[in-house]
Amino acid sequence: MSRAESAALMGEAAEHFRLPVRVYYQDTDAGGVVFHGAYLNFLERARTELLRSLGFDIGRLAADGVLFVLHRVEIDFLKPALLDEALTITAGVMRLGRSSATFSQTVERTDGACAVRAILALVCVSAANFKPIAIPAALRAALEPFTRPVANVPDRPSP
Amino acid sequence: MSRAESAALMGEAAEHFRLPVRVYYQDTDAGGVVFHGAYLNFLERARTELLRSLGFDIGRLAADGVLFVLHRVEIDFLKPALLDEALTITAGVMRLGRSSATFSQTVERTDGACAVRAILALVCVSAANFKPIAIPAALRAALEPFTRPVANVPDRPSP
Amino acid sequence: MSRAESAALMGEAAEHFRLPVRVYYQDTDAGGVVFHGAYLNFLERARTELLRSLGFDIGRLAADGVLFVLHRVEIDFLKPALLDEALTITAGVMRLGRSSATFSQTVERTDGACAVRAILALVCVSAANFKPIAIPAALRAALEPFTRPVANVPDRPSP
Amino acid sequence: MSRAESAALMGEAAEHFRLPVRVYYQDTDAGGVVFHGAYLNFLERARTELLRSLGFDIGRLAADGVLFVLHRVEIDFLKPALLDEALTITAGVMRLGRSSATFSQTVERTDGACAVRAILALVCVSAANFKPIAIPAALRAALEPFTRPVANVPDRPSP
Repeated sequence: MSRAESAALMGEAAEHFRLPVRVYYQDTDAGGVVFHGAYLNFLERARTELLRSLGFDIGRLAADGVLFVLHRVEIDFLKPALLDEALTITAGVMRLGRSSATFSQTVERTDGACAVRAILALVCVSAANFKPIAIPAALRAALEPFTRPVANVPDRPSP
Repeated sequence: MSRAESAALMGEAAEHFRLPVRVYYQDTDAGGVVFHGAYLNFLERARTELLRSLGFDIGRLAADGVLFVLHRVEIDFLKPALLDEALTITAGVMRLGRSSATFSQTVERTDGACAVRAILALVCVSAANFKPIAIPAALRAALEPFTRPVANVPDRPSP
Repeated sequence: MSRAESAALMGEAAEHFRLPVRVYYQDTDAGGVVFHGAYLNFLERARTELLRSLGFDIGRLAADGVLFVLHRVEIDFLKPALLDEALTITAGVMRLGRSSATFSQTVERTDGACAVRAILALVCVSAANFKPIAIPAALRAALEPFTRPVANVPDRPSP
Repeated sequence: MSRAESAALMGEAAEHFRLPVRVYYQDTDAGGVVFHGAYLNFLERARTELLRSLGFDIGRLAADGVLFVLHRVEIDFLKPALLDEALTITAGVMRLGRSSATFSQTVERTDGACAVRAILALVCVSAANFKPIAIPAALRAALEPFTRPVANVPDRPSP
């Protein structure tokens, strides 16, 4: 999708979950700032806590043979974040498909600036064979209030 | 950029460096496959070794105050890879700007299937203040043979 | 040190800081449990938060040229921990030297069982040359109440 | 075990496997050197490649329900290693028990100095229930030439 589309969609996520995350040495690199891969970890934590806040634990889902795997990520690294900084990771739902869910997420710095902006398409798969399966009905029902119809955007999980 | 544009550009990288990488437990997760964040690490290793193969070490560059930081990543996770699998990570240069370089990279599985496809825009910055600086002339000269003009694509580092 | 000595010392830490940590996919491996390296990260987070609870931030310390680097770790992995498990990481101070600090730490599972037990000797070094320096006086004063004389144990930071 | 015992044992490993490893940004932290947790990853890679050199792949072992899990690690961080440095990771076998194997490992810097020295006790467990099982006979037979009787040391896998 284009940047304009992305930006529009980000604003369209009906509600965003917010998770505070602290930056430790383990998250930084010799450049003196947060290592790019660490942001993926921060984003995963916030998506997981969003689900938990809705009553769905990934441990229980996994025990039931349900995994969410990343299908596509678009991530913009806008500003660096520093060791020991108090970040806020947001997570909202942009779209729900039968077996896919697209999240919009950001990493906000202590000064309020946006360090990272990402769109992540996940697919619900069977733990047994990694084939797509329908998102469990109860989870879908819980996520739907977080999603609202987006006009003028093609209905593809990750264009 | 659209998927069609991405695919077209991937094919346009004039030459691709190839790095063999083995999957260890440290790269996997409880889903039984390679953790998505581990792929970012694999891709970084291959970009670094591409530079080294051209005579440029990131350690020397850093000592000279030159860092390459990720600006944007688009990454498609197409197929899972397994513990102990022998992967090949490729790295090619799609575009060179004054201070930016866009790489196309893939992760190939043992069976030849493409596990991951990514486009990564990096910016050359000063280690002192993280402001963009021109890519050092000698490095640019070394990278240019890896890049060729791409027709019909707007001249933006990471649309 | 012997296991008996270790166990005795662990009990001797005057007070233990406690940090809740959740297990995400990023912390697990294909064995289905927490990856051993992830525990080192959990332990680092708790030591850092112990310092913060005393009014000392590693970011500020680093800006002042003060780093704490690990000198020696003894770590026992006693029981596995699972995806999504709510862990508690403890951190106490066993001994304070001029430039060294020895921590005793544990990872407790949701069921109260001890998953990991560790003794970690850190050295305070100059960020400029990684040479040992005295622990800043104010930090030492803050840590001392956490430490108490241990009888019958030789006065070595990491025997 | 005491440091003297450790040092003595390290020298007793009959033969050491050697694996070259390069340091990337992903392995470093804001202190400007290799992050302590990264060494655990380097050590795991070398143990895995030692097994592979003997004809045993962890992927095949895992498929057969056989895991090796860390039981205890003693690790000394002696000297820092730098971004882009070419390290050599060694792995030797110190002792073989029925279900346990104790490895001695080091990380050597480019200048030949020893950056890290470690003793790691692993236990062979069933993937089904994480209970100890006997090391497969063929693997034991392959490892035995790497091990030799150690005089004057109590026969405990991880004292």
